[in-house]
Amino acid sequence: MANYKLKIIPLGGLGEIGKNMTAIEYGRNVLIIDAGVMFPEHDMLGIDLVIPDFTHYLKDKKDWVRGIVVTHGHEDHIGALPYLLAEVNAPVYATRLTTGLIELKLRQKGLASRANLNTIQAGDQISMGGLFDVEFFHVCHSIPDAVGLAVRTPVGLIVHTGDFKFDYTPAWGGPPDFGALARFGAEGPLVLLADSTNADNPGFTPSEKTVDEGFDKVFREAEGRIIVATFGSLISRVQQIINAAARHNRVVAIDGRSLEESTEQAQALGYLNVPPGVLVDLMSLKGRPDSQITIIATGSQGEPGAALGRMANGRHRHLKIKKGDTVVMSSRVIPGNEQVVARAINKLFQQGARVISGRQDQVHVSGHASREELKLLFNLVKPKYFIPVHGELRHLHAHAELARKQGLPAENIFVVENGHVVEFDDKGGRVTERIPGGWLFVDGSGIGDIGPQVLRDREMLSQDGFVIAVVRLNEKTGELVARPRIITRGFVFVKENMDLIERAEEEIIANLRLDGKDPYATIRTTLADMLYSETRRQPMVMPVVIEA
Amino acid sequence: MANYKLKIIPLGGLGEIGKNMTAIEYGRNVLIIDAGVMFPEHDMLGIDLVIPDFTHYLKDKKDWVRGIVVTHGHEDHIGALPYLLAEVNAPVYATRLTTGLIELKLRQKGLASRANLNTIQAGDQISMGGLFDVEFFHVCHSIPDAVGLAVRTPVGLIVHTGDFKFDYTPAWGGPPDFGALARFGAEGPLVLLADSTNADNPGFTPSEKTVDEGFDKVFREAEGRIIVATFGSLISRVQQIINAAARHNRVVAIDGRSLEESTEQAQALGYLNVPPGVLVDLMSLKGRPDSQITIIATGSQGEPGAALGRMANGRHRHLKIKKGDTVVMSSRVIPGNEQVVARAINKLFQQGARVISGRQDQVHVSGHASREELKLLFNLVKPKYFIPVHGELRHLHAHAELARKQGLPAENIFVVENGHVVEFDDKGGRVTERIPGGWLFVDGSGIGDIGPQVLRDREMLSQDGFVIAVVRLNEKTGELVARPRIITRGFVFVKENMDLIERAEEEIIANLRLDGKDPYATIRTTLADMLYSETRRQPMVMPVVIEA
Repeated sequence: MANYKLKIIPLGGLGEIGKNMTAIEYGRNVLIIDAGVMFPEHDMLGIDLVIPDFTHYLKDKKDWVRGIVVTHGHEDHIGALPYLLAEVNAPVYATRLTTGLIELKLRQKGLASRANLNTIQAGDQISMGGLFDVEFFHVCHSIPDAVGLAVRTPVGLIVHTGDFKFDYTPAWGGPPDFGALARFGAEGPLVLLADSTNADNPGFTPSEKTVDEGFDKVFREAEGRIIVATFGSLISRVQQIINAAARHNRVVAIDGRSLEESTEQAQALGYLNVPPGVLVDLMSLKGRPDSQITIIATGSQGEPGAALGRMANGRHRHLKIKKGDTVVMSSRVIPGNEQVVARAINKLFQQGARVISGRQDQVHVSGHASREELKLLFNLVKPKYFIPVHGELRHLHAHAELARKQGLPAENIFVVENGHVVEFDDKGGRVTERIPGGWLFVDGSGIGDIGPQVLRDREMLSQDGFVIAVVRLNEKTGELVARPRIITRGFVFVKENMDLIERAEEEIIANLRLDGKDPYATIRTTLADMLYSETRRQPMVMPVVIEA
Repeated sequence: MANYKLKIIPLGGLGEIGKNMTAIEYGRNVLIIDAGVMFPEHDMLGIDLVIPDFTHYLKDKKDWVRGIVVTHGHEDHIGALPYLLAEVNAPVYATRLTTGLIELKLRQKGLASRANLNTIQAGDQISMGGLFDVEFFHVCHSIPDAVGLAVRTPVGLIVHTGDFKFDYTPAWGGPPDFGALARFGAEGPLVLLADSTNADNPGFTPSEKTVDEGFDKVFREAEGRIIVATFGSLISRVQQIINAAARHNRVVAIDGRSLEESTEQAQALGYLNVPPGVLVDLMSLKGRPDSQITIIATGSQGEPGAALGRMANGRHRHLKIKKGDTVVMSSRVIPGNEQVVARAINKLFQQGARVISGRQDQVHVSGHASREELKLLFNLVKPKYFIPVHGELRHLHAHAELARKQGLPAENIFVVENGHVVEFDDKGGRVTERIPGGWLFVDGSGIGDIGPQVLRDREMLSQDGFVIAVVRLNEKTGELVARPRIITRGFVFVKENMDLIERAEEEIIANLRLDGKDPYATIRTTLADMLYSETRRQPMVMPVVIEA
């Protein structure tokens, strides 16, 4: 059987590598691991979602997909499933909580009925297409029910950690399944794919339990309301907040749709343990003493439209921040959001709240393994080949260096980018081709229709707006039949610049008379030159010429 | 004399407080401290510079300004001077390097001849307007020749630290003037204004000397070229890089205009000590072994147009990154730039460079004092009142808490925002009014003409572009005389959406026939509804109706 090559292909563009989606291919069989979204970056103007572009890779291989395996229920691992399932009809395998969160997502998109969802649990071993034998093993992460994968293939055993850390005292479930990792190690695995997010972070990532201590200090000191901002998907964190509130005789209200939905789903599935009477409706808080109130709110990234953002901006319909409130930022800040988060924090302070957000306050810990944990993982699994994944290139390089320092020869380590194909056969492993792909932009209902030209236009419009000149010419003589009309937005404040607009119109009239050649070129050059010299701005200039 | 009130007013909007510009007022006398820029934030679309709005405050007080004192030569302290000096004719006082950097800035704006620049040095004591007696004292910061100020007024002594840290082994000059601080303390100062940037950072900020060790490690290990990215204004850092290169037998070339200019200016003024033969022209590097080459480059914030950004994007005319290159990021990342910096680093890795940027690598340290230094400062100066400045509200609150913990009563501490007036007389101090102000946006040659409406338009255009429908109607019958024409940019890729555009035109024709009322309203509603339902996007929709 081993006459085919085993291929491992992380999908997506530059950014975090091997995180959102990975394909494993052998013969005419494909296994997909995760299907998540990337957060749009600042210069992806107007883009709602960014997903790995699987269309090229799967073009002729839709029927080859034997299974889609999802490691845990975070957006960057499940967010692209609706798009993938619209193209590929294959069974999805995930743990119970993950399946519940996937169902929620598919329901929101009206796709629930189409999916073939299969619930597995850590320890299960499932054959997909008779060729890939997938064993799921328990790992610790910032969401319950996360798993790693051992994939047995005709060429050898692949161990894939998923997102993980080694937490001896996690907020949910037991410590990671070290036994399984050691067992894989004894099998002599072909290749290890491991989470590199914190590969440049020395030491160990603190346990989730340390957050309990952080919360206890906050709850002990706070005299007024406590408002904790976190992600809807950080379900273990929600549990910790509920526990802290119960310990300190406070009720908890949830504020923000994504938090409400995921909390409800987690509770329905038994992943959230709420003592009776602790969880109450936001509306029922009225009349209750502030010292008995906890609110868990969306908006940890400073989003102005989320619950915390509306409080910060004084636009929340039911809550007004006041002196005595304690706001706790209990999540990481996604790179790029630092500025909006800082602004929200400043506005909360402005209204009298005390805001707790520092690392030293222990109200958040990372869900990813640091260097010492990565070393332990490596020593348990003892792979022949190593592919660092889940991180930007700099993290993969740091992780690769760690593996080299532990004795793995450099030629057995593949630092690859998304789209690179790593191929294995009985002669060994190597990086071969690069397949076409990248990121696919979702904007409104359009998928992949926003290309570089539209983004360049949006960028230009965002900087200096546009100026359009509507010019009517006699179709026979080419002479102006009316005064040009200028329409502009985002360039100058029109009401205070009527004079500039009028002079621009005059300039068009004068120049059209001077040279009667191509009116489009004349108008464009006239306007661009004149507006730049007067304002040092470069709006998008467009002539509209009507000949009648 | 003390029948007037002494007023201290930080100028600007929400953000860093009391940093870019501060006014001290007594009777009809005003002293201005610093005149710097703020870095535009992400949602300030198209804005080039942000300066404190001094126009309201100075409206009737231009003739009251007795002096403008500048603490050091960083952009956020000198960048707004050209705008201030265009309005106010007052002498500027600064140390020799700061004056040199101000001259450079004014020359670039063609304003050099108008300024009345006076060079002072630490230890000098100058009377301004006979009422403010300003004593300059030496502090350590990441640029040479930084000073703090002791301002003696009829109401009492104001101590203002400027940007500072307590560095016992600084890269330039000696340790800070502890003696002066103790002397002010003995005088019984009225109020202390102190740098709060790192007020939530425990311990001491490491000495600049630790960067020498960091560089030595990098220079020892690097086999190929070393490229260090830093700010032009971090002149002490440039000195340290030159020293490290000289120790390791490498030459140094400067790449990037702002670095070239400030280095040249600093060298001309004797603030940069370059061993003979070490500084060479970028063009002279050809043929020299990589192991002898150091390049100091602009672009530490990931700016695509700066030297390092062009290398990362493969668009540098003279330099191509290759395997063996070591790139060192030797500056802080300004909040909000994390994403572009990360992208540049990834691209450098992609081309084979090793990139060193982590805190653990000691290639950068902060220029601002941490909590233990702030405690020492407080104990030396022992002020009656305290105003934390130079930081966002959360930093000021952390600094205020530190002062409270050291025994200062809460009512003697003023956490204020820019625009708040803190007033002192023989009865004590208090926060009184808030003066109109905020930030002033500079876009091209326009100052303050970009208001919220234009920014909202730019925001809307940046998200989904615009759609303009040009509709020609018979002015008597109101009937269409030609097919509507749709012009759009930034909304969809037109070439692939001709069908959508045509259907939109049809829809306008149909609806104009149905209801012949206000064609503007009909077109706007028709287009907005139809485009949203088809694309879930909301471009700016504008009808242009020509009746003829």
